[in-house]
Amino acid sequence: MAEAEAPMEEGDLKAEENAKGVDAEANEAPTVPGITEPGGDLDALWTCLAAFLVFFMQAGFALVEAGFTRAKNACNIIMKNLMDFAIGSLGFWLVGFGLMFGTTNGLFGTDQFMFDGASPEALAVKPNPTFNWAFLIFQTVFCATAATIVSGAMAERTKFSAYLVYSVLITCIVYPIFGSWAWGGLYTKNGWLADKGFLDYAGSTVVHSIGGWCALAGAITIGPRIGKYTADGKVKPIPGHSIPLGALGVFILWLGWFGFNAGSTTAITGGAPFAYICITTNLAAASGVVGALIASWIMFGKPDTSFTLNGALAGLVSITAGCDCLSPQWAAVAGLVGGVIVVLSCVMFDKLKIDDPVGAVSVHGVCGAWGTLAVGLFMNESGLVNSGDPTQLFAQLIGIVTAFIWAFTLSMIIFNVIKFTMGLRVTAEEEMQGLDIHEHGMYAYPAHLVTEGTSQAGHVS
Amino acid sequence: MAEAEAPMEEGDLKAEENAKGVDAEANEAPTVPGITEPGGDLDALWTCLAAFLVFFMQAGFALVEAGFTRAKNACNIIMKNLMDFAIGSLGFWLVGFGLMFGTTNGLFGTDQFMFDGASPEALAVKPNPTFNWAFLIFQTVFCATAATIVSGAMAERTKFSAYLVYSVLITCIVYPIFGSWAWGGLYTKNGWLADKGFLDYAGSTVVHSIGGWCALAGAITIGPRIGKYTADGKVKPIPGHSIPLGALGVFILWLGWFGFNAGSTTAITGGAPFAYICITTNLAAASGVVGALIASWIMFGKPDTSFTLNGALAGLVSITAGCDCLSPQWAAVAGLVGGVIVVLSCVMFDKLKIDDPVGAVSVHGVCGAWGTLAVGLFMNESGLVNSGDPTQLFAQLIGIVTAFIWAFTLSMIIFNVIKFTMGLRVTAEEEMQGLDIHEHGMYAYPAHLVTEGTSQAGHVS
Amino acid sequence: MAEAEAPMEEGDLKAEENAKGVDAEANEAPTVPGITEPGGDLDALWTCLAAFLVFFMQAGFALVEAGFTRAKNACNIIMKNLMDFAIGSLGFWLVGFGLMFGTTNGLFGTDQFMFDGASPEALAVKPNPTFNWAFLIFQTVFCATAATIVSGAMAERTKFSAYLVYSVLITCIVYPIFGSWAWGGLYTKNGWLADKGFLDYAGSTVVHSIGGWCALAGAITIGPRIGKYTADGKVKPIPGHSIPLGALGVFILWLGWFGFNAGSTTAITGGAPFAYICITTNLAAASGVVGALIASWIMFGKPDTSFTLNGALAGLVSITAGCDCLSPQWAAVAGLVGGVIVVLSCVMFDKLKIDDPVGAVSVHGVCGAWGTLAVGLFMNESGLVNSGDPTQLFAQLIGIVTAFIWAFTLSMIIFNVIKFTMGLRVTAEEEMQGLDIHEHGMYAYPAHLVTEGTSQAGHVS
Repeated sequence: MAEAEAPMEEGDLKAEENAKGVDAEANEAPTVPGITEPGGDLDALWTCLAAFLVFFMQAGFALVEAGFTRAKNACNIIMKNLMDFAIGSLGFWLVGFGLMFGTTNGLFGTDQFMFDGASPEALAVKPNPTFNWAFLIFQTVFCATAATIVSGAMAERTKFSAYLVYSVLITCIVYPIFGSWAWGGLYTKNGWLADKGFLDYAGSTVVHSIGGWCALAGAITIGPRIGKYTADGKVKPIPGHSIPLGALGVFILWLGWFGFNAGSTTAITGGAPFAYICITTNLAAASGVVGALIASWIMFGKPDTSFTLNGALAGLVSITAGCDCLSPQWAAVAGLVGGVIVVLSCVMFDKLKIDDPVGAVSVHGVCGAWGTLAVGLFMNESGLVNSGDPTQLFAQLIGIVTAFIWAFTLSMIIFNVIKFTMGLRVTAEEEMQGLDIHEHGMYAYPAHLVTEGTSQAGHVS
Repeated sequence: MAEAEAPMEEGDLKAEENAKGVDAEANEAPTVPGITEPGGDLDALWTCLAAFLVFFMQAGFALVEAGFTRAKNACNIIMKNLMDFAIGSLGFWLVGFGLMFGTTNGLFGTDQFMFDGASPEALAVKPNPTFNWAFLIFQTVFCATAATIVSGAMAERTKFSAYLVYSVLITCIVYPIFGSWAWGGLYTKNGWLADKGFLDYAGSTVVHSIGGWCALAGAITIGPRIGKYTADGKVKPIPGHSIPLGALGVFILWLGWFGFNAGSTTAITGGAPFAYICITTNLAAASGVVGALIASWIMFGKPDTSFTLNGALAGLVSITAGCDCLSPQWAAVAGLVGGVIVVLSCVMFDKLKIDDPVGAVSVHGVCGAWGTLAVGLFMNESGLVNSGDPTQLFAQLIGIVTAFIWAFTLSMIIFNVIKFTMGLRVTAEEEMQGLDIHEHGMYAYPAHLVTEGTSQAGHVS
Repeated sequence: MAEAEAPMEEGDLKAEENAKGVDAEANEAPTVPGITEPGGDLDALWTCLAAFLVFFMQAGFALVEAGFTRAKNACNIIMKNLMDFAIGSLGFWLVGFGLMFGTTNGLFGTDQFMFDGASPEALAVKPNPTFNWAFLIFQTVFCATAATIVSGAMAERTKFSAYLVYSVLITCIVYPIFGSWAWGGLYTKNGWLADKGFLDYAGSTVVHSIGGWCALAGAITIGPRIGKYTADGKVKPIPGHSIPLGALGVFILWLGWFGFNAGSTTAITGGAPFAYICITTNLAAASGVVGALIASWIMFGKPDTSFTLNGALAGLVSITAGCDCLSPQWAAVAGLVGGVIVVLSCVMFDKLKIDDPVGAVSVHGVCGAWGTLAVGLFMNESGLVNSGDPTQLFAQLIGIVTAFIWAFTLSMIIFNVIKFTMGLRVTAEEEMQGLDIHEHGMYAYPAHLVTEGTSQAGHVS
């Protein structure tokens, strides 16, 4: 398989560009690449188009979270998703991009704040400003994704103002600093995780696990929703108010993931495997659906719609790390396993009384770790028998464990500081009546949905 | 009109590439095309982008079908659409692509199963693996579209397990074998329908009519929904539960159709008429809206929202076959007629007591046939007077009739075998209470939509 | 900043192409540009892709308007949006394009009606028909946007037939004639506003203010909805029936705006600043969200969801004129101010008893004027201190005032002629019972949403 043998891995791409950058500095007059040359305007176009798709994932997350929770909190969920993206866009440009891609001091980047793609510093390394701006918009929408994951796990009980504070911290600090370890090195040397051989092509760990483990810390710190776990140890399901909206969200996320994974080439030149990644991504998502369908059918006696929808997301998260280097066959296996894992994991967290209304920790945290591990298990295997690669597996494990320690520990500290200062949770009365009316002074669906515009006869003549 | 005079027809493109493939085999070292050469990475990029748009049509179909049917079956409809795409993605990769594009024995392809775009066999014909993978993802999303059409016509009464069986058969057998007759010949000689001069640029027949006639067989075999046709011969309308969701679905389908039609160039090189196709596609859709608006206004006394929305889809199906070779004027005429046809056809099927909840047979089957015929009637006519072309018209008729015989007959057999073995229809009790709770154990809109999060006063303070 | 110093402004691009066109005519055999040359197939591809995104904005507008108004009028709103686009697509092709881009007589274009991108006249100027068709589809979707803005301000009380008449007039006359003044000159000389140095890169004035001032004329002429302003001078809020649908609409509009602004390059060649525009557009939208959040929090005591969502649109409209020439910093400032303005403006129009159900006049009219002014205030400023440019500011003011006089006056005449001939407003009874059942004979959400498919126990077992 041509692409898998010579994967245009993001780290490689950057290393190559760094080399070019060094030459350029020596010559004092870097040549701007032509339209179809690496780092040229065509690569910038694809990177922008992929960024649009990833941007649209924000709508997908908003719908999945709103649809899978109660109507009385729908405005609040939309506000959190909207603010995540607004704060992430501003914060990542001001601070995050520099921490992640600036010249690293070993732990984080120290320049390129308020990134200017046409500055002499930027152009010395990557001489095409158009590509630089494209890279910034792509990385911006990635960053906002990590923040949005947390929203789902803390839904229906978090104070809006407290959430805003956390949203600033994850987009400006938690995500970009970890990102610099695995994906930094744009302007100088690689991050330390990349140097250890850690592979995470599009972010099973860097984006999804980081978001998932932050979400876990949030769900633990804030505690379960009122009524979710009864005194006698039962789990009371709290069904979402609109499965169609949630389903639309899943379709939008699937669409956006083509940009997320295939767009991580940030190139169509140089044999970039963007089309190949579309295949592995789609097969993993499809088999994730099948895996969750079968698992839920066996465990609950019926094929559950919510779990099957989450199976698609689980499959997608599971292929994100290895979308460039797994064969189609193994991509399907990774997705299928991810689809089963998400069902088991959601049941497990409920047993642990950790209330995650939309399954965000299972989908993004657990399947993110699985997808990262799958790179070590399955990469470069084109047959159905796997020889394994202990070295790679070990590098993957280092990355997985590091991500958990970093994101979970730091988020536990942040959420507890918020909890004991400004407060993290709304009052019980506010939670019962809904966050929409208390936090935002409005309803998602005022009464005229029921009393007006509705035929009581049940049919039109 | 430059493009219409020398249309880069899909068959032509493939023939040309076959020729190249033969040369390549002779030389033993096929040259990988450069980025902007035919079959190069830029063509692959456009093909992938178009595939993303066509993928998103799955969300459109899900919303149209769910919105235009009752709330008690919304989860079931979503599950069917999701499984269509998951099964289609896996099945078409494993089996369908080979049947459709592999070396044909005259009736179907016999190799390229579990398609590997980087295999020596594939590269011998098309030396750029990136383009091969792009072609696979584009054909995959096409295949899933055909399956999804059937879902709508059989909505609100079909057993989920039975539907899964049928979904496997249409995506792995019914669609790809017919496809090989009209669009095969990627690796060897053309299919027999293509050899007869049959023209169907983007699939009015190959995708839409095939799906529509399968849907007709399904609707006939399963029978109408309880209460649809009363004992005294009246037709009782069963209105959809959410026109806004259905309308959003139509807008998404319109969007996706730009990828469906213009993307069927699978190229921007060589003068591919992708931009021209955007114009014909959009004009036909717009005039389909106008046609259905006027027809419904005249027939029912008011401009009906559902019919007008379906008019857009009718216009789109009507231009799919001739999007490359009809002038803008005739594209508008084809769409306008399609918009009128869909209203008349829906009324006719109700008179025949064939219950098609979303009008899928009319939109896809009937308008698909009309669009295919329109190529024979209108092609290469830039004025408003049409000279006609009996030879082309005859080739079109052969294709239309063959599609009906193949898809309708085979589906009648399949659905009847399912009916008399595992059963095709849910019980009357299940149908009355809704498929969601019986088949999937959940509701699309649990009660808190009504009782919680809803201001009883009708306004916010 | 490379791009801002040499912005590939649309007027410049056209001027350059005109020059080429003249040469071509002299040579009698214009050279068709290669794939990656200016005006070549790659530029056509990007223009088409951007057009798809702008097309999708129609779905966004439909959802914003339907979600932010009452359920009893949702079908009507969808119909108006659908018809706007259908009429706009046909009318702009037949008449509007020629008025806007044909050879001008000083006031409007006089040829290129029923535009044919492959006609000798078109090819003499722009020798690549593919690019010409791409330009047509892009300009078509722009035109339809202006019409759709009016729909929101007149929602819930306008006669459907009257609206259709107006929709024809705005897409065929009001928008294209003003457009010819600012953006014409494709085939011959520039329009007079462009000659005065007026800058409006992607249409803060040309599209949004024109639509907004037409909307203002409509809202004034038709008067407020029954019950909106009470006899004792109070303003009674009439909340929208589905904030989640409205929010989805805002996300779709944000997505589409990347095509609207960045696509206005209609090129990726020649250093076109498409990626740079993505950054300014996104930063302005994000800061618009923040501005409206803060303004509504201060003014109403809570962070309002509707206003914050409108803040995103306000930010986007505010950067549309200057997306190519404002620095990221000033783009963020322009958006932030726009977000504050939209809150103040909505409150002001309510004080004036001008009932605009979705805030269309504030978002598009007022923020459009602000965004156009911001070009004069902030352009080419890379620091945070602004030196100002009185000449440019004056040119911007001329454009802003001209747009208001043209669109508002002409629309007042049109709406009053309609009012006193065929009638503009439905009867009070129709308004109370809803336009859906009276105008279209159906309900957006028939009763089974409430009585069927709904668990009365509030949970699934």
